[in-house]
Amino acid sequence: MNKIITISREFGSGGREIAQELAKTLNIPYYDKEILKQIAEHTKLAENYVEKIMETPMYFPFPILSAHSFSIPNHTLEQQNTIYTVQHKIIRQLAEKSSCIIVGRCSDYILNDMNPLKVFIYADIEYKIKRCLYKENTASNISLTDIRKHIVQITKDRASYYKFYTGQKWGEKENYDICFNASKFEQHTIIEVVSALYKNTK
Amino acid sequence: MNKIITISREFGSGGREIAQELAKTLNIPYYDKEILKQIAEHTKLAENYVEKIMETPMYFPFPILSAHSFSIPNHTLEQQNTIYTVQHKIIRQLAEKSSCIIVGRCSDYILNDMNPLKVFIYADIEYKIKRCLYKENTASNISLTDIRKHIVQITKDRASYYKFYTGQKWGEKENYDICFNASKFEQHTIIEVVSALYKNTK
Repeated sequence: MNKIITISREFGSGGREIAQELAKTLNIPYYDKEILKQIAEHTKLAENYVEKIMETPMYFPFPILSAHSFSIPNHTLEQQNTIYTVQHKIIRQLAEKSSCIIVGRCSDYILNDMNPLKVFIYADIEYKIKRCLYKENTASNISLTDIRKHIVQITKDRASYYKFYTGQKWGEKENYDICFNASKFEQHTIIEVVSALYKNTK
Repeated sequence: MNKIITISREFGSGGREIAQELAKTLNIPYYDKEILKQIAEHTKLAENYVEKIMETPMYFPFPILSAHSFSIPNHTLEQQNTIYTVQHKIIRQLAEKSSCIIVGRCSDYILNDMNPLKVFIYADIEYKIKRCLYKENTASNISLTDIRKHIVQITKDRASYYKFYTGQKWGEKENYDICFNASKFEQHTIIEVVSALYKNTK
């Protein structure tokens, strides 16, 4: 049976880089943006449009009883649902094809029955701000306050997306096997630990 | 500077055993019941009485304005506060004496400025029930429902104690450096990982 690692991560924690390096260390495929590309191909939507739709905060359409209607049509939500269905299918196919690492996209939940090694990477807010600043174009005038707001908003959107499709709380340790505070350890240390755990699991 | 590991753990997760074995592996002292003994010596209270007081659910005495008084005298709370103050002092002394492992008792919070390696061990409820059953006297007639209730109650009490003295949420991953789901890994695997991380940290 294929051995899968799912890596969920807070924005700015460096979880994506850890996943990339881990894939090199273990010599197994790593899927992140690749999933986005495949969704675009399946849905015939542009890749950046798919990304935009997936990043739109989830809208919970409670049925409101008014004089004339019982439901609210919501085009974005329909597209989000279509995209999630395709994403679900693609993630299952990838995990059934070979051992691999999948980043985010509710993969811990979607592949739960395959007993993946479920990793969550988080970090202190100051660490995440520093990393974002470092990656930011130096010509940009974005303020620290704006970066902080941006991080908080993305975290909120990811949590809302995850909650909507899984019914679980994003980042709650009970949904994962191991959680690392990336502000505490060097990236290579986290990679070494996950790599050893992966080799130890059946 | 001394290198400290704090291990916080859910009741039934096996965290205490992990701490004991880890101490043997690293050849450093391990403090758990020893702290209770020292508190009893300092306060001149019996060890089992100290334990009982520490396990009493925290009572938050909001000042209630009535016709005759503004506060509620609470003898248990006073004892809890005295014990916490002594415990705080003892934990600081132990950590200043040598590198060591300290289990529970808000040690992650009390020693935060010493930059300890803060570990949290949790587990699925079914795993915890199985471990409790295994450890339980086979002659005992305790039901599965009662064991489950007992685990839930202890978890609630620990969270309330921690919240009262630290203002933080017990078990929230942000308060720790690494969190393990003990239902997923063999105990020796967790010990190996924490041991390697300890050796890697300055």
